[in-house]
Amino acid sequence: MLTFSKMHGIGNDYIYINCFKETVTDPEKLSVFLSDVRFGVGSDGLVLILPSEVADFRMRIFNADGSEAMMCGNATRCIGKYVYDMGMTDKIEISLETNSGIKYLTLYPDANNKIESVKVDMGKAILVPREIPVNSDLERFIAQPVTVDGKEYAMTCVSMGNPHAVVFLPEVDSLDLEKIGPSFEHHELFPDRVNTEFVRVIDDHTLQMRVWERGSGETFACGTGTCATVVAAVLNGFCKKEEEILVHLRGGDLRIIYHEDDTVTMIGPAIYVFEGKMEYPNL
Amino acid sequence: MLTFSKMHGIGNDYIYINCFKETVTDPEKLSVFLSDVRFGVGSDGLVLILPSEVADFRMRIFNADGSEAMMCGNATRCIGKYVYDMGMTDKIEISLETNSGIKYLTLYPDANNKIESVKVDMGKAILVPREIPVNSDLERFIAQPVTVDGKEYAMTCVSMGNPHAVVFLPEVDSLDLEKIGPSFEHHELFPDRVNTEFVRVIDDHTLQMRVWERGSGETFACGTGTCATVVAAVLNGFCKKEEEILVHLRGGDLRIIYHEDDTVTMIGPAIYVFEGKMEYPNL
Repeated sequence: MLTFSKMHGIGNDYIYINCFKETVTDPEKLSVFLSDVRFGVGSDGLVLILPSEVADFRMRIFNADGSEAMMCGNATRCIGKYVYDMGMTDKIEISLETNSGIKYLTLYPDANNKIESVKVDMGKAILVPREIPVNSDLERFIAQPVTVDGKEYAMTCVSMGNPHAVVFLPEVDSLDLEKIGPSFEHHELFPDRVNTEFVRVIDDHTLQMRVWERGSGETFACGTGTCATVVAAVLNGFCKKEEEILVHLRGGDLRIIYHEDDTVTMIGPAIYVFEGKMEYPNL
Repeated sequence: MLTFSKMHGIGNDYIYINCFKETVTDPEKLSVFLSDVRFGVGSDGLVLILPSEVADFRMRIFNADGSEAMMCGNATRCIGKYVYDMGMTDKIEISLETNSGIKYLTLYPDANNKIESVKVDMGKAILVPREIPVNSDLERFIAQPVTVDGKEYAMTCVSMGNPHAVVFLPEVDSLDLEKIGPSFEHHELFPDRVNTEFVRVIDDHTLQMRVWERGSGETFACGTGTCATVVAAVLNGFCKKEEEILVHLRGGDLRIIYHEDDTVTMIGPAIYVFEGKMEYPNL
């Protein structure tokens, strides 16, 4: 039998397996099987919680197509909740080994001593276009005019380990992302394609965003995209460094701080939905 | 805590709750919550297994939008497997009360005494256009020329408790159902809209079909649609009554018999995927 948990961070849902207790031999194939809602369980992918030799815990994350991902802010918060609520740690400051380095989490317990939100150190924002990567020799790519599908946008580019293009617009609810998203994703500026954030500034501490993720389409939540959005908002003068900015996404809210040293922290909820048990599938 | 099971019949996946043990007070809202893969569990809907005063068991089935459905052949098979495998009956002939009458199931156990497939009496095919309903004064609606989006199809209409339009085509893999499906669904012939089956005749005992379900779009499996397809194939002379016809759907295979008395039986698999436990949600 295989025991697993379903958790989500503002609608970014993964299946979590505690590999201190369970043995997963073929995580790529298992992720494909479990992610399929019709024949399996249904999720954005599979997350393994593992022992680490360099941190308190280790995370491996697999997409629904079986490919291994580097990092996911929403999944990171869920791991923080999982290890604390399950009694695997009693610390509220923990370190987590990921494929993009060690991340540091701060856990916020509620009145019942269950974790309701988690702060994640998301690392440094990268602003040099060639490193994002963006095909540009500029020193920074801030509010640059870029024509997409015949329309000009003022675009700001940021990497948070993955490339993001951020455009600020008067309103985002009516955008047809299915139509314009692919044109941003495959624009010639981006050798590795790009994630695009469409952002409305509500005030200097509040933003609304929708996100088109490369390879996935519009999603309810993107942790790195939310960080990139706040970095871009500061670079454009809409918000300030060291101040907590509330970002409304389709799946819920995240709070982001862009620090003086160019690192970014993210605070957001983690939700435990259910525990499941199944025969280990033939893959 | 709420305990539930996820099962599917050729990819038509529901969450099953055993109401002999569990209490569900608000099934419409619970179905909406559980069916959402991001924030809930993920499924085509919710099925309650209940005591009956007129049959061995009673089924209520709710769609993902919370509306109550009449009947679902795929769910019916899963209930047959559930009640036998869970030891709620040791009979292999059981009766099931549904919102469209009592259905009779025959259960086929495997070598481990678990049910691997189930035969369901799907009731009588209705062929009178006004009863299907189809806006036509014909006695039967068989291979009638109907123009949809400027293209003429030979259409046969059958009700299996819900309305179906069946069109036979040389091949169905390349059809763009997202494009043509809605034009069938909302065609002026159908006052209650219609489910449409796009069918290739492989030989006189084998069909391939794709289905566009009203309100749902293309689905992997539709039990009543598969029955309607075989009825239509007999009416068009492609197959014979009382012979078992194998139908390949996107989600798997069903075997259908159209009987001399106009009743239809369906035989197909039922798969148990996992058991889940969750805090009863605040709805």
